[in-house]
Amino acid sequence: MFVTQCVRRCAVLTPDKPALVCGNRTTTFGELRDRVARCAGGLLELGLTPGARVAILGINSDRVLELMYGSICAGGAPHNVNIRWAVPEQAYAIDDSGATMLVVDAHFADRLPALRAQCPSVEHVLYLGDGAAPDGTLSYEDLVAKSGPVPDQCTDPDAVAFLNYTGGTTGLSKGVMLTHRGVMAAVSIVLADRFVHPGMKTAFLLPLFHIGGVLQPLASLLVGNTTVLLPTYVPLDAIRLIHEQRIEQMFMVPTMIQMIVDHPDFGHYDLSCVTHIGYGGSPISEALVSRIREKLPHARLMQIYGQTEGLPATFLPDEDHVSGMDRLRSAGRPAPGCEIRIVDGDGNETAAGVIGEVAIRGPHLMAGYWNKPEQTAKARKGGWLYSGDAGYLSRDGYLYVVDRVKDMVVTGGENVYSAEVENALAKHPAVAGCAVIGIPDDKWGEIVHAVIVLKPGQQVDGEGLQAHCRELIANYKLPRSVEFRDALPLTPVGKVNKVALREPHWKGRERRVG
Amino acid sequence: MFVTQCVRRCAVLTPDKPALVCGNRTTTFGELRDRVARCAGGLLELGLTPGARVAILGINSDRVLELMYGSICAGGAPHNVNIRWAVPEQAYAIDDSGATMLVVDAHFADRLPALRAQCPSVEHVLYLGDGAAPDGTLSYEDLVAKSGPVPDQCTDPDAVAFLNYTGGTTGLSKGVMLTHRGVMAAVSIVLADRFVHPGMKTAFLLPLFHIGGVLQPLASLLVGNTTVLLPTYVPLDAIRLIHEQRIEQMFMVPTMIQMIVDHPDFGHYDLSCVTHIGYGGSPISEALVSRIREKLPHARLMQIYGQTEGLPATFLPDEDHVSGMDRLRSAGRPAPGCEIRIVDGDGNETAAGVIGEVAIRGPHLMAGYWNKPEQTAKARKGGWLYSGDAGYLSRDGYLYVVDRVKDMVVTGGENVYSAEVENALAKHPAVAGCAVIGIPDDKWGEIVHAVIVLKPGQQVDGEGLQAHCRELIANYKLPRSVEFRDALPLTPVGKVNKVALREPHWKGRERRVG
Repeated sequence: MFVTQCVRRCAVLTPDKPALVCGNRTTTFGELRDRVARCAGGLLELGLTPGARVAILGINSDRVLELMYGSICAGGAPHNVNIRWAVPEQAYAIDDSGATMLVVDAHFADRLPALRAQCPSVEHVLYLGDGAAPDGTLSYEDLVAKSGPVPDQCTDPDAVAFLNYTGGTTGLSKGVMLTHRGVMAAVSIVLADRFVHPGMKTAFLLPLFHIGGVLQPLASLLVGNTTVLLPTYVPLDAIRLIHEQRIEQMFMVPTMIQMIVDHPDFGHYDLSCVTHIGYGGSPISEALVSRIREKLPHARLMQIYGQTEGLPATFLPDEDHVSGMDRLRSAGRPAPGCEIRIVDGDGNETAAGVIGEVAIRGPHLMAGYWNKPEQTAKARKGGWLYSGDAGYLSRDGYLYVVDRVKDMVVTGGENVYSAEVENALAKHPAVAGCAVIGIPDDKWGEIVHAVIVLKPGQQVDGEGLQAHCRELIANYKLPRSVEFRDALPLTPVGKVNKVALREPHWKGRERRVG
Repeated sequence: MFVTQCVRRCAVLTPDKPALVCGNRTTTFGELRDRVARCAGGLLELGLTPGARVAILGINSDRVLELMYGSICAGGAPHNVNIRWAVPEQAYAIDDSGATMLVVDAHFADRLPALRAQCPSVEHVLYLGDGAAPDGTLSYEDLVAKSGPVPDQCTDPDAVAFLNYTGGTTGLSKGVMLTHRGVMAAVSIVLADRFVHPGMKTAFLLPLFHIGGVLQPLASLLVGNTTVLLPTYVPLDAIRLIHEQRIEQMFMVPTMIQMIVDHPDFGHYDLSCVTHIGYGGSPISEALVSRIREKLPHARLMQIYGQTEGLPATFLPDEDHVSGMDRLRSAGRPAPGCEIRIVDGDGNETAAGVIGEVAIRGPHLMAGYWNKPEQTAKARKGGWLYSGDAGYLSRDGYLYVVDRVKDMVVTGGENVYSAEVENALAKHPAVAGCAVIGIPDDKWGEIVHAVIVLKPGQQVDGEGLQAHCRELIANYKLPRSVEFRDALPLTPVGKVNKVALREPHWKGRERRVG
């Protein structure tokens, strides 16, 4: 029940089959086991202690995966650093994890001086790039070449296998502790749902620091499937890789799929090989489903909902991707082995159709947040993970996620989900974009406030928007104040930054959340 | 991650679909959840305390499954009693488990006086049969009708969910403690291997006290498949049930499959619906595979090896069922999430091809033997389950089980596996049956002793058998003494009773095992 089994199993069953393909390099299952064992040997010689964190900062590559598994095989835990963060965010997370080793590839070598200065726990730096290692770093290839293989050092299935940082775009990030037992349970659930079939060729298109970078390669390795890695997501590169490698299965967010099917050069390539597309992050639009049906006719779709702290939680299978059906807006139904419960503010289960916080139970939940017992206690209660998502369950068990709990507006004792108001506002012909937040009010606690971006040349005022919304939502949900802006502030991952929107209104006050 | 999730999940997703079919009775997923919750309510009213054992003695029925799940839902643990045992063996196990409730069906009601007398811990007896409950018992149907449903009482995923007794035919039986977490992990592994597909109709043909009675119905319930129960295994009844219910999947031992395909009335029924046959207990003969290929042409075969203490451990998939291939004699390769290691007498891993004890690791192992810490410590070492099976791994990871460790003969420091000698003896044309045991010898420790049953009218003496074996096996493995008998003593499950064969030779001496 150790994660490293995924590296060992097919090294015996199919040693000569390609495990990883990255650019011109192919690593067989036998070679991967050997390189991981040598990497572990090298890390131990450098002094890696049991449980120590190895921070890895690099774009997708077979070498990053080797280092992840090598760290675990040596008894440590990899912390894949979010490559989209700025240096201060990356430094915060590395410092928070207390990593004693830091690995960078050629793309991030220029950040080393800043990171070293801000991360005093780092004792050794490995360089993943080709050619000579920068001063003060050791070449990873040298380490693997010079070190002897060591036996797997894993001893405790409840030890942390991966430390994945989450958040960080709207506050300080938190390290999610994923144990061997939990990760292997998640891999089992992924396999149980038959989205990964033995024999499939997989492309890994997400960044490896994502939770998908933990689960998808492990599931493929465990059943002996070849994983082809794309260094970074460039739509045309993805199209070429799928075409050339005859990829059958991949996991994306809907925007990434859209960039493929809508690409002007789509017609020049043969992507008929694709049979399974998993996606997550949000539901998929009806329009995109029909474009996929037309352009990738053999592809079965599957939505996987969850979060770093507990993934997967629900699945929406291909047969639920039908035009005109409500369930296309849902996140699907509980995966086998997972349970979903909707909980009200008092911790009681709500009835079907009633919105509350989505709680998840299963064998695969995180052990907690690294060095954050209070936040762990808030997220894990009575065996359940409180997801921070607001949603409801239909009578037949479909989960509909409507908002983040922290974005809910509590006005006069009533809960208003910002997404519901935003959906109403977005239907006005003059509205290009909108965001709804709660702002403080002495009488109502909070009132519903809308930030609107108008379409060029269009006009509407606050009263006009209220009148429009009154036709669609209840009176207490109507925006009581409206402001117009040229653009909405975004977080680095492209979501509306509601923290920034709320900030001027709440200066000096404390906002009660949830 | 509680076993009871299997009862709840599809009560929401597909409430009106049949979950269980037993004779003329059909129970939908919605009804099953309701009846299980009422059963739990009734058990709690009778005073069932957390962790208390409920002994169940009955042939296969939907009601037995309800009681198993109802006991768990009430916070207790079912102990399904081996229906093939004699009263003293059953009484020993019930008494050992300390069950406070005993359930019997109409077939076993006559054993009640004897069992009650020998099992003082039993406070209440439930009667599962139709009609009036015998004196001193409560009707199960009345209990369910009169009790209100209660919420699931499960709180600890590491609590015992099932207590399954094993052994008992050649010594005292032991209660195998299976936890919620372990059983759900085993169910995941079964699903991950895709032997149970969502949408399949399953027949349950084994007795429910078998470990298969834990895993197979739970896996089917979890993914929403209908399970059709056969009360007891009568080959023609099984054939009719498969034909009438259009069964697609089932699990059996090879003898049970043989009784179906060789049945004289086979041709009168249409069994073309069968697509998946799982089997275990032993490898399957080449002759039987070819009869299955001919008579059940759509059936894919899958061997599942393991034991109550850790099932599944290995899988042999359909594509390995090829005539003339060695691997048909194997138990297959480690299931995803399971690991197999062969260990010598000093606890070290052996090289490929070298026989030792089969050790199993995975998330699904038993927690231990009930009230038997010493035997638990012998079986579970360093996270591994020592199976008591002797075997070896091929270079490509196939497991070959050659013997039970306790049946191995240690002669002059060499290990001789009885199965190997028996295979050699069985090839002699005069031998109808044989068994090889170790008997004490002052010089060699033990010597190889053969017990032979001759075919009618055939003759051979010990020297002739030795000469025959010398062509097939090494000198130190040859039987040094031979005795002839009219028949071999058998255990109640039809295996050769080697304990009985050894007993007269070892009287007053202690035999070192393994």
